[in-house]
Amino acid sequence: MAYVSSTGEFTRDQRYIATRVTADGRDGYPVEPGRYRLVVSRACPWASRVVIVRRLLGLEPVLSMAVAGPTHDARSWTFDLDPGGRDPVLGIERLRDAYLARFPDYDRGITVPAIVDVRTGRVVTNDYAPMTLDLSTQWRAYHRPGAPDLYPEALRGEIDQVNDAVFGDVNDGVYRCGFAGGQEAYEEAYHRLFARLDWLSERLSGRRYLVGDTITEADVRLFTTLVRFDPVYHGHFKCNRQKLSEMPVLWAYARDLFQTPGFGDTVDFDHIKRHYYEVHRDINPTGIVPAGPDLSGWLAPHGREALGGRPFGAGTAPGPVSDAEAVPPDHTPLAG
Amino acid sequence: MAYVSSTGEFTRDQRYIATRVTADGRDGYPVEPGRYRLVVSRACPWASRVVIVRRLLGLEPVLSMAVAGPTHDARSWTFDLDPGGRDPVLGIERLRDAYLARFPDYDRGITVPAIVDVRTGRVVTNDYAPMTLDLSTQWRAYHRPGAPDLYPEALRGEIDQVNDAVFGDVNDGVYRCGFAGGQEAYEEAYHRLFARLDWLSERLSGRRYLVGDTITEADVRLFTTLVRFDPVYHGHFKCNRQKLSEMPVLWAYARDLFQTPGFGDTVDFDHIKRHYYEVHRDINPTGIVPAGPDLSGWLAPHGREALGGRPFGAGTAPGPVSDAEAVPPDHTPLAG
Repeated sequence: MAYVSSTGEFTRDQRYIATRVTADGRDGYPVEPGRYRLVVSRACPWASRVVIVRRLLGLEPVLSMAVAGPTHDARSWTFDLDPGGRDPVLGIERLRDAYLARFPDYDRGITVPAIVDVRTGRVVTNDYAPMTLDLSTQWRAYHRPGAPDLYPEALRGEIDQVNDAVFGDVNDGVYRCGFAGGQEAYEEAYHRLFARLDWLSERLSGRRYLVGDTITEADVRLFTTLVRFDPVYHGHFKCNRQKLSEMPVLWAYARDLFQTPGFGDTVDFDHIKRHYYEVHRDINPTGIVPAGPDLSGWLAPHGREALGGRPFGAGTAPGPVSDAEAVPPDHTPLAG
Repeated sequence: MAYVSSTGEFTRDQRYIATRVTADGRDGYPVEPGRYRLVVSRACPWASRVVIVRRLLGLEPVLSMAVAGPTHDARSWTFDLDPGGRDPVLGIERLRDAYLARFPDYDRGITVPAIVDVRTGRVVTNDYAPMTLDLSTQWRAYHRPGAPDLYPEALRGEIDQVNDAVFGDVNDGVYRCGFAGGQEAYEEAYHRLFARLDWLSERLSGRRYLVGDTITEADVRLFTTLVRFDPVYHGHFKCNRQKLSEMPVLWAYARDLFQTPGFGDTVDFDHIKRHYYEVHRDINPTGIVPAGPDLSGWLAPHGREALGGRPFGAGTAPGPVSDAEAVPPDHTPLAG
């Protein structure tokens, strides 16, 4: 999935399975209720984007979801949270099986999020970047009533531009800090990360959301990194100029989203912490998972309503999470 | 120096060289101006206690100081900051040489602080706990005019009691978090640490100093751990319920001391960070040193004067640090 180059810089392997599920089925995989299963880990920021967008759009009834356990071995994510260690719909123990069912010689990373064709058990795509956009644009016929438009046509240029900057410096930037092969590469990533966070703080100081006056794809993508910042990236990845909780604008922005239905109610802090600290033995050899940080602050008032904005535009908030997909109460500050 | 027991708990090897330098010379080493050399590292919290006390008491003219480099190999602290990599007074490259000069078969840790007899080149003691108390009580004839009484007779019982609690739960507690051999031992140390920090916050919320109304040995011992908390213990040792900067009483208390002559002007954040992150490859295999945290907050007003108290009692603050012993300006927020 990734490697450290000779200059010590971490580089993400961007070769994903580019097949898309579309309304017109141009790649052989048309949008169809009940046909696909979304496989995620709540630990993974890239997968968490899809979990949030699926819920904001109300796609739960037409696109089922399998949640892999927070840790995995060298070969694959596993369904160790399910009875018998097997996904009840796909009938497999490891996500790897769905990859090999389509590509017997598959030799790249077995990654989440992945969409699997339930009838054949074969992976369709693991290309996370278009995946959320396709949920917004290709699955529109199945959106819930009141679903927000997360990728409005008139704002796509600006959203794409913000997303590009956030991806390189923030979403992937934290990994380039944590997996740097040397001091120089680390420091370069660190300075790019915090320069971009300063830019985002400035941008968000006078407006409630990143683009336009409603929640968009851009907010989803920034949120999944921010919510992991203090529990993982600050210490484990050495992104430690400040904690998120010490950057007032970004911290209020992140709390605002966290407290918005569809965001915080998808976040499993236990999975997040266990994944990074238990899996990355190369940077945390003991596998010990920090007991902190104190998460109660996520529920503190954020005061961002004063900036105006309409979270869901002309639409409405999603209803409560179904019992089947609820995060365990001891994994989130929202319970209790 | 230390080992991890079968239950995963980190245990500090407390067998130090118990010889003392005393006014009456009962161990063969009488207090004598110019006879001894104090060897420290500014990275080490145990050594930093002695650096602070020596300066508060004005013992610089009678007890010279050698500063070892921030990192060391498996065998010893070295004088790699000095021209030719050799301490100009003792003429040795490694502190180990002074230990072996007295004990040819010495097989325990080569630790700082250490006091070396300049005439023979032999180590006298590395027993850090009595070392600072002896500077206060045995070297009294050589204290500067206006030196504070850091270990007043009437308060010794209370000081010792606070020191005991702080040692087990805080000074050594952070190490028991960071070097725990397993999750359970880590969590036990973490909860003890933060319970004690809560107790200290409560105690210090209504009084400026830990015991009495002046700076004592108890404040020195707590300070050397607090000043390392955010740069090292929070991330590297997983002491991450909050940062020090998120615990308002302790943070103001620590800033108050930092801004008091004799405390902050002895602190070298570069040495502190490099030591822990470069030396402990077992918990930081890459040796990469975090670029954070932002240290400018140490200079912010602390408001603790409102609690009353007389920092130096009937005495006075020490004068400025001599050029020869000044911390490099790029290693401290005090410069500039």
